[in-house]
Amino acid sequence: MAFETTTEVRFAHVDAAGIVFYPRCFEMLNAAVEDWCADELGVDFRTMHADRRIGVPTVKLSVEFASPGMLGERLTISLHIRHVGRSSCQLGFAFAGDGRERLKGELVLVCMDIEGKKAVPWPDDMRARMTEGLVPTL
Amino acid sequence: MAFETTTEVRFAHVDAAGIVFYPRCFEMLNAAVEDWCADELGVDFRTMHADRRIGVPTVKLSVEFASPGMLGERLTISLHIRHVGRSSCQLGFAFAGDGRERLKGELVLVCMDIEGKKAVPWPDDMRARMTEGLVPTL
Amino acid sequence: MAFETTTEVRFAHVDAAGIVFYPRCFEMLNAAVEDWCADELGVDFRTMHADRRIGVPTVKLSVEFASPGMLGERLTISLHIRHVGRSSCQLGFAFAGDGRERLKGELVLVCMDIEGKKAVPWPDDMRARMTEGLVPTL
Amino acid sequence: MAFETTTEVRFAHVDAAGIVFYPRCFEMLNAAVEDWCADELGVDFRTMHADRRIGVPTVKLSVEFASPGMLGERLTISLHIRHVGRSSCQLGFAFAGDGRERLKGELVLVCMDIEGKKAVPWPDDMRARMTEGLVPTL
Repeated sequence: MAFETTTEVRFAHVDAAGIVFYPRCFEMLNAAVEDWCADELGVDFRTMHADRRIGVPTVKLSVEFASPGMLGERLTISLHIRHVGRSSCQLGFAFAGDGRERLKGELVLVCMDIEGKKAVPWPDDMRARMTEGLVPTL
Repeated sequence: MAFETTTEVRFAHVDAAGIVFYPRCFEMLNAAVEDWCADELGVDFRTMHADRRIGVPTVKLSVEFASPGMLGERLTISLHIRHVGRSSCQLGFAFAGDGRERLKGELVLVCMDIEGKKAVPWPDDMRARMTEGLVPTL
Repeated sequence: MAFETTTEVRFAHVDAAGIVFYPRCFEMLNAAVEDWCADELGVDFRTMHADRRIGVPTVKLSVEFASPGMLGERLTISLHIRHVGRSSCQLGFAFAGDGRERLKGELVLVCMDIEGKKAVPWPDDMRARMTEGLVPTL
Repeated sequence: MAFETTTEVRFAHVDAAGIVFYPRCFEMLNAAVEDWCADELGVDFRTMHADRRIGVPTVKLSVEFASPGMLGERLTISLHIRHVGRSSCQLGFAFAGDGRERLKGELVLVCMDIEGKKAVPWPDDMRARMTEGLVPTL
């Protein structure tokens, strides 16, 4: 039921200590959310922003970093829908690489009208797809 | 008792919706932690990494984004020490701009030996300064 | 005649080799261009993009990296106007830190209408200010 | 004779004007150089930095931006070796997307000893592979 995508730890991602600089993890996470919107919800970010004039800013985020990713490592990023609200969506996420969990956490996205810069209900097509993908919390 | 530093929302920080792209907040937050280490703990990041061979990776993070920062806005970032452990330190943080709270959260830093890539106890000088700056949780 | 601004090499800027990762130099350079627009041309980036609906994309760039900047270093970035065209502006730039030249180069900005995504002549107020600041090429 | 790799314009890459923020192009370019080192020279960046203790900083760069890349666009990045020196290598590069040239330019890499932070001759294995891939300048 989880959505999975992969990425690679690039030179641009690592710090002077040779491990992933944590703000870069969120660039990777956002790219995974982009893939999820395009592949699972049927609306890519360009269409969403340019044509439908909605954005999906992250309004809440919590993460635990279990072990640092290394340069050159291929990461698998998995996303699970936890809860779908009127204009919000809670996603669980995890990064794994080299056979180990690298980090895991949760985020809440909100559907935002770009002009008005305020929350609006999910469009029906996106909500329908999210509800299908819902993973029951154990 | 809080440490404060300021920064500015640059063109590099904003997204296609005209608001701060959230991974950039953590670049700003890390810069604030750098200022805090230099000014409050007496050890700048260069000395810490190059000479003392320790790093302070973030191992836990939670954030709530209250309102989006805008291009050109001057942000005040405040940090509060919540708890000092043997090799960890919990910090509360908040960003304010244009008279409003932009985000707030907590993070846990760990003192890491760069060669061994594992947690080590805080050096005495850093621990002493942290303990002085401790803010009692209400 | 040159415009100068300062910045600092942050942890977010350095790579696994402990020196500035060169794409980060252009984030710093763009921030210097932002300061120059606000301070010298009298139009900050927010007003320019949000209200006047023009952008100033970089259409040409050449750089020589003389010596790598180090973590914690305070950099002085200087900008010189070389040539002002109908809708373009050529700027020379240099970064110095720790008493040494770090890099120098040239860039060409173009005044772009954001809606139409095409070049437009400089607004009179910006052109007038640029012309005043012109540095004759030797 | 050219080396080609692909990437995608992500939300993290675009600016408030909805087009690629040019410093992000160099993050993409560096990733292409990483792919080229791994695939064409037989030495991935992790091995190069961590084991062989050499880096390949960019010491010279020139670029012309022909047309701005858009969010969601798939880019093809091509690299051509122009010249191989004792410790340097000149590469031509071009980005194409949506059937158009987005940018093209040249860069010079230098083989650097990470400990000594100075230029050293290319290792024989890397030089041999580069020489094979040399594209005659027309």
